Amino acid sequence: MDFHTEFKPLTVQPQEIEGKSFEIITEELGEHPFTEEQYPIVQRVIHASADFELGRSMVFHPDAVEAGIRAIREGRKIVADVQMVQVGISKPRIEKFGGSVHVYISDPDVIEEAKRLNTTRAIVATRKAVKEADGGIFAIGNAPTALLELIRLVKEGVARPGLIIGMPVGFVSAAESKEELAKLDIPFITNVGRKGGSTIVVAAVNALSIMAEKRG
Amino acid sequence: MDFHTEFKPLTVQPQEIEGKSFEIITEELGEHPFTEEQYPIVQRVIHASADFELGRSMVFHPDAVEAGIRAIREGRKIVADVQMVQVGISKPRIEKFGGSVHVYISDPDVIEEAKRLNTTRAIVATRKAVKEADGGIFAIGNAPTALLELIRLVKEGVARPGLIIGMPVGFVSAAESKEELAKLDIPFITNVGRKGGSTIVVAAVNALSIMAEKRG
Repeated sequence: MDFHTEFKPLTVQPQEIEGKSFEIITEELGEHPFTEEQYPIVQRVIHASADFELGRSMVFHPDAVEAGIRAIREGRKIVADVQMVQVGISKPRIEKFGGSVHVYISDPDVIEEAKRLNTTRAIVATRKAVKEADGGIFAIGNAPTALLELIRLVKEGVARPGLIIGMPVGFVSAAESKEELAKLDIPFITNVGRKGGSTIVVAAVNALSIMAEKRG
Repeated sequence: MDFHTEFKPLTVQPQEIEGKSFEIITEELGEHPFTEEQYPIVQRVIHASADFELGRSMVFHPDAVEAGIRAIREGRKIVADVQMVQVGISKPRIEKFGGSVHVYISDPDVIEEAKRLNTTRAIVATRKAVKEADGGIFAIGNAPTALLELIRLVKEGVARPGLIIGMPVGFVSAAESKEELAKLDIPFITNVGRKGGSTIVVAAVNALSIMAEKRG
């Protein structure tokens, strides 16, 4: 490539930037209610959002972190509600343990079934995921309907996910769907309120996979 | 699929949920400093983040919205800094005008060049994008180094993007890179502070493409 100026070698490496960011987060967050094993997930969520309020709004089932690490180390499937979540999740750490990341919302059979039933693709994709990836990690950052359907299937005893990370963003149904999730007695990671989204759920999954890798 | 219960047809359609969300946003936002043409972009950013503070922090070059609509209608390339941004952008409206969405950060030649020069893939990908997609829309949600490199190339007169949407999130360099962007006298959309991210930049691009389509 021919540009006027030459590249300069970096004075600060990307790894150093991440380390510095994590220091700032810990310093500015100060006291917090999270356990030692929950904190790396909160920290990475704040890193991805620059939003301390969002970080502080997180809620963990007591078994959530262990269940997530276990699911990753056992190579269980990870199900994303949308493609942005799927591509954002760091694959090498997941694949090292034999795992894989799936998204069903654009599958032709899901699209067809949703039309036929006059319902959302997110709901039909959740049902497909429960059949194909039960015991896995469900990572929902967008579709409250997907989360509500998954909760319903858990209550009916049909779905047995290893961990639900449910943090959809939005003004209609998102906060309510997370309230319902927080009532379940199975491993979940969620937050209180409207905020959330794909980048937030990706941050939580990536934090878990880093913790899984550290176990060696 | 065989589940205990049957699907119920939806009582609220997804389109209605979006409409209702937009009403809530307009009501809760109240008075704001944005023009009529800027507001749909702010509204969609708030919709994607549930964060009014982030919406209010947005800054527009006076020609930004027109330049973005024009670039889309002329079928100019859209360049994403990361794959999450690429997959999040709604393609049918872009492709209708002959446009396409690109991401260079994982190209083998970019990875190799970054290693050779001891710099970030984001910087090298920006240089490649300037060669292959100049005049297009640069959508940067993650990498402050990509944005700073693009700003440098604009100042040198090497890069002539149609519009820069620069809203990287982060604790180190992100806010500073956006301050630099806001000093340029070419079309830009950005925000003040640490917040931003892939979903935010995607929301801005999708808002522009909806406006482009409405022009008929």
